[in-house]
Amino acid sequence: MNLVIVEPEDVARNGDVRFSGVRAAHLLNVLKVTIGQPVRIGLLDGPRGIGTVTAIADGTVTLGCAFDADAPPRPRIDLLLALPRPKVMNRLWAQLAALGVGQIILTNAERVERPYFDTHVLEPDHYRPLLIEGLQQAYDTRMPAVSIHRQLKILVEDHLDTMFEDGTRLMADPSATASMDAVVRARQAERLLLAIGPEGGWNDFERGLLQQHGFAAVGMGSRILRSDTACIALLALAHQAVS
Amino acid sequence: MNLVIVEPEDVARNGDVRFSGVRAAHLLNVLKVTIGQPVRIGLLDGPRGIGTVTAIADGTVTLGCAFDADAPPRPRIDLLLALPRPKVMNRLWAQLAALGVGQIILTNAERVERPYFDTHVLEPDHYRPLLIEGLQQAYDTRMPAVSIHRQLKILVEDHLDTMFEDGTRLMADPSATASMDAVVRARQAERLLLAIGPEGGWNDFERGLLQQHGFAAVGMGSRILRSDTACIALLALAHQAVS
Repeated sequence: MNLVIVEPEDVARNGDVRFSGVRAAHLLNVLKVTIGQPVRIGLLDGPRGIGTVTAIADGTVTLGCAFDADAPPRPRIDLLLALPRPKVMNRLWAQLAALGVGQIILTNAERVERPYFDTHVLEPDHYRPLLIEGLQQAYDTRMPAVSIHRQLKILVEDHLDTMFEDGTRLMADPSATASMDAVVRARQAERLLLAIGPEGGWNDFERGLLQQHGFAAVGMGSRILRSDTACIALLALAHQAVS
Repeated sequence: MNLVIVEPEDVARNGDVRFSGVRAAHLLNVLKVTIGQPVRIGLLDGPRGIGTVTAIADGTVTLGCAFDADAPPRPRIDLLLALPRPKVMNRLWAQLAALGVGQIILTNAERVERPYFDTHVLEPDHYRPLLIEGLQQAYDTRMPAVSIHRQLKILVEDHLDTMFEDGTRLMADPSATASMDAVVRARQAERLLLAIGPEGGWNDFERGLLQQHGFAAVGMGSRILRSDTACIALLALAHQAVS
């Protein structure tokens, strides 16, 4: 944990931060904080800063805080991902938040099995702590916005223009020869929406639909990767391409 | 599985391939092969090809095979990795083979816990099937060479020059400003050895030792990643840099 996320309800009227529960336990048992010790903190979706421990009592840790003037910038990559199987999605939450994405847009596709949508892995109470874990790892405060869509066509035709207004749309495609880097540089893209298909790929209709709506196919060599490995690899390349 | 790996002992005198056990079960129960069906195969560390099912009997599948003239090229990236905790290492084996690495060189470091070296995760009988799983996913046949070193100093001073003769040595370092791409292009590197430290990083001695032995520090932005996420992200960037 490279930063402790502060949620709005942790902030007292006088500006002090009071942690109880899991975060207090982490501070006391793992970081073994003592009075006067500085701790790296970050206000959820707000600025990072330093909290200095001023009191420890009854499992509650109180910190006096000084925050930076500005919040870190929102990540410049959004992700449109065909929902992976629950075990894989479960592992991805924290990694996606750590790599940095503005939005995680999950969608159905022909090769996504319907029951994947009905698991606890997609419940906010389940994934929110995992996203926060990823932010704390990556020293970031910007919580990805999550949305779940059961019909790719409706998502792409009716909602996507509002969700992602300006920027470059890319579709990962093992058969594409253009590299992400080349496409991003040619378009001088500052924001990217990256679409990643299911294991087995988008079907022809889905691929056509995405292309009609401005998604340019980009490849990453001839190797075929598992969807979670591909997600991480492609997000790393996307971040480098817009940096 | 995008290819079925053929091991030398699977090849009969007449050149036919006979699968039994796990691979036969996969062919029969998952791919549901029938007589005459073509299957993508690859000789371990050798060429890829097509096997045509000629007989199915008693859980054994026999294929007549035609192989390409050449084996796929050896991956141009080698990895020097401070041994992660067993659960993480276990998940990494298949992913590393899928991403493509010539060598997986595992090492101790101050921030690696000694018991990590004594788990079954590091036994060839355990990791070899996982590496093959990764090759089969990535449509590759080149098995990474694995070596395990309990002393970084001895590894770097006495063995590394033999293990990695020509090429560029890079060390991932969150504080470095040079990007992998820039360094690789400047040196026109064709082979890379990429060193990735433990959670918490190399200590000053280890960092100095690597630098003295030619490792150039490269960064990937300000985000701090878990070591498995960092491995995948950095290998993707490394492959792109040498492509």
